[in-house]
Amino acid sequence: MAETAKAAAARLRLGGTIARIAPADQDVLAAVQAALDAKTKPRRSLGQLEALASRVAAIRGSADPGRLEAAVVVAAADHGVAAEGVSAYPQEVTRQMLANFVAGGAAICVLAGEAGAELIVVDTGVARPLTDPRIRQARIGPGTANACEGPAMSRDQALQALAAGIELAAELTSGGVGIVALGEMGIANTTAASALCAALLPADPASVCGRGTGLDEDGLRRKRAAVRRALEVNRPDSRDPLGVLAALGGFEIGFLVGLALGAAAERLVVLLDGFITGAAALVAARLAPPITERMVASHLSPEPGHRLVLEALGLRPLLDLELRLGEATGAALAIPIVRASLAVLSDMATFAEAGVSDAGR
Amino acid sequence: MAETAKAAAARLRLGGTIARIAPADQDVLAAVQAALDAKTKPRRSLGQLEALASRVAAIRGSADPGRLEAAVVVAAADHGVAAEGVSAYPQEVTRQMLANFVAGGAAICVLAGEAGAELIVVDTGVARPLTDPRIRQARIGPGTANACEGPAMSRDQALQALAAGIELAAELTSGGVGIVALGEMGIANTTAASALCAALLPADPASVCGRGTGLDEDGLRRKRAAVRRALEVNRPDSRDPLGVLAALGGFEIGFLVGLALGAAAERLVVLLDGFITGAAALVAARLAPPITERMVASHLSPEPGHRLVLEALGLRPLLDLELRLGEATGAALAIPIVRASLAVLSDMATFAEAGVSDAGR
Repeated sequence: MAETAKAAAARLRLGGTIARIAPADQDVLAAVQAALDAKTKPRRSLGQLEALASRVAAIRGSADPGRLEAAVVVAAADHGVAAEGVSAYPQEVTRQMLANFVAGGAAICVLAGEAGAELIVVDTGVARPLTDPRIRQARIGPGTANACEGPAMSRDQALQALAAGIELAAELTSGGVGIVALGEMGIANTTAASALCAALLPADPASVCGRGTGLDEDGLRRKRAAVRRALEVNRPDSRDPLGVLAALGGFEIGFLVGLALGAAAERLVVLLDGFITGAAALVAARLAPPITERMVASHLSPEPGHRLVLEALGLRPLLDLELRLGEATGAALAIPIVRASLAVLSDMATFAEAGVSDAGR
Repeated sequence: MAETAKAAAARLRLGGTIARIAPADQDVLAAVQAALDAKTKPRRSLGQLEALASRVAAIRGSADPGRLEAAVVVAAADHGVAAEGVSAYPQEVTRQMLANFVAGGAAICVLAGEAGAELIVVDTGVARPLTDPRIRQARIGPGTANACEGPAMSRDQALQALAAGIELAAELTSGGVGIVALGEMGIANTTAASALCAALLPADPASVCGRGTGLDEDGLRRKRAAVRRALEVNRPDSRDPLGVLAALGGFEIGFLVGLALGAAAERLVVLLDGFITGAAALVAARLAPPITERMVASHLSPEPGHRLVLEALGLRPLLDLELRLGEATGAALAIPIVRASLAVLSDMATFAEAGVSDAGR
């Protein structure tokens, strides 16, 4: 099938975006560690907070990035694979939660507010659309097809989802955002994420499938079987990340891949949430390997595949609070920690300034 | 030696404070879990954040405590045991850091500010006092005696330190504070904390002594030897926590024991920092066992004794960021997490309110 003009444009933009994602600036890293070592505290005594400050500074290309504005993006979509009985909740909940997000009642509304972050809710393909001006429209279709029966989406659709995410990243950058937190909502999307991880890591489906929002033993068995079937039916090639995404799906996952790529290209901090955003990050990293240096892992989810994903990305999570809700809730909890690391860099006195004796360690 | 009138008054106040520390209110715990289970999220999907909300609600005696004001208290003192060469820094640094705290240049100044918490700096016995109106004066003496040569302080002094902490807790309560974060500064105070833990857990000195602010191998050897000698010379009786505190010392540690007891009696959340505040918490728990239900562990320090202390207290830390600075820096990082847990309780919509289908799990 010939690529559409829209898809061709999306492919061009994707290539340009990927080309702008460079490895971390070693000069900035060295300057930040020297600055931290001069502060009135024993060397490296702020542990991972110092590593975080260094990472963020390198992302921003500045040894003192200051306070960063944060945006939390929750992308929602429905999944054909829900028909396999792989979720504890009915598909209608995706749409109901979309309404809850804009009404302010969901966990992420509360936690984004606590973190002083803007919340952006995106419909990337909920089965029945919800017309509300507070929802950003980036619909690729009315939910994906069932990946157990063929590709979840076409390559063109995958490219369009990526392009829509890249577009939002550009807008956030223009708006002065420095941290973009990735979040998602979509009944059955841990199944899509599990399939993506099984294909890309690669890993056995049993090792990446977990209970999601609360599956029982039978549900977990169905989920593992669905992932195996999706892999058998589609036979995705792990050397073709876009093809893997198209085969196994997730419009919201594709959108988040694009958002991560676009944000990284614009030197925004890409703050990951749990397993599903981890799967998106994995797709992004296979398209643009240096992107992992632009990412921060907010937390470790109890979903068994998440640890494998973070290891593959080389990321150490800031929190381990057994969060398994998604929506960017873990990412929102990490925003104050990211900001605190930057405040240490900006505002602490040096030994010389404060007249404190330095043991020189 | 007869108890002084001041010490007798302190003992009376201590007894009254301890009597007011009751176990957690089971009715509140049940009400909070029911409220959390009705919110628009899979049951228990916010993991430790839900456990935290429940704990704090039980402490406050309310199923919806709302936003809590936080105070960070950094108690400073010097230690006679510093003469044993157990710190990487000279003793003068305690006083220099006290000046840095009030000047706003220390890590805790930055992190308390980020957390929107008031910072209270207390001199409980720095060797050379610093006259600055911004320092709260609660001096028990010009540093403790060397615990390797006899008791670090008298029982009267230990009681006075506790009373001074209880006094501050009462003032914070009157001032509307709901969370008190415990912090400390004192060259050689990880040695005092190690000795206290070795005596109270009990544990072998080698298992609780770490590198503190950056000791080398020789320094660590001296520190272990100092703890062993302090235990041999003083032969503290673990059934007498006040006697153990007096023998092994720390004016700031005694003050923090009193602050924890007083705060718990007033139903404030006692937010612990690292190893030294953990040692203070251990003394407090031996004086008033139900106090552990009023405590929240903010982080796990790399000091080897800290894990043992938290296990003994039955507390699970919120963060594990390899922080080994003290000053309440870990506690300050945890304040937004505590507040976030309460915001979830106050502000999230229920399934019924939001019209979201509930899987009932």
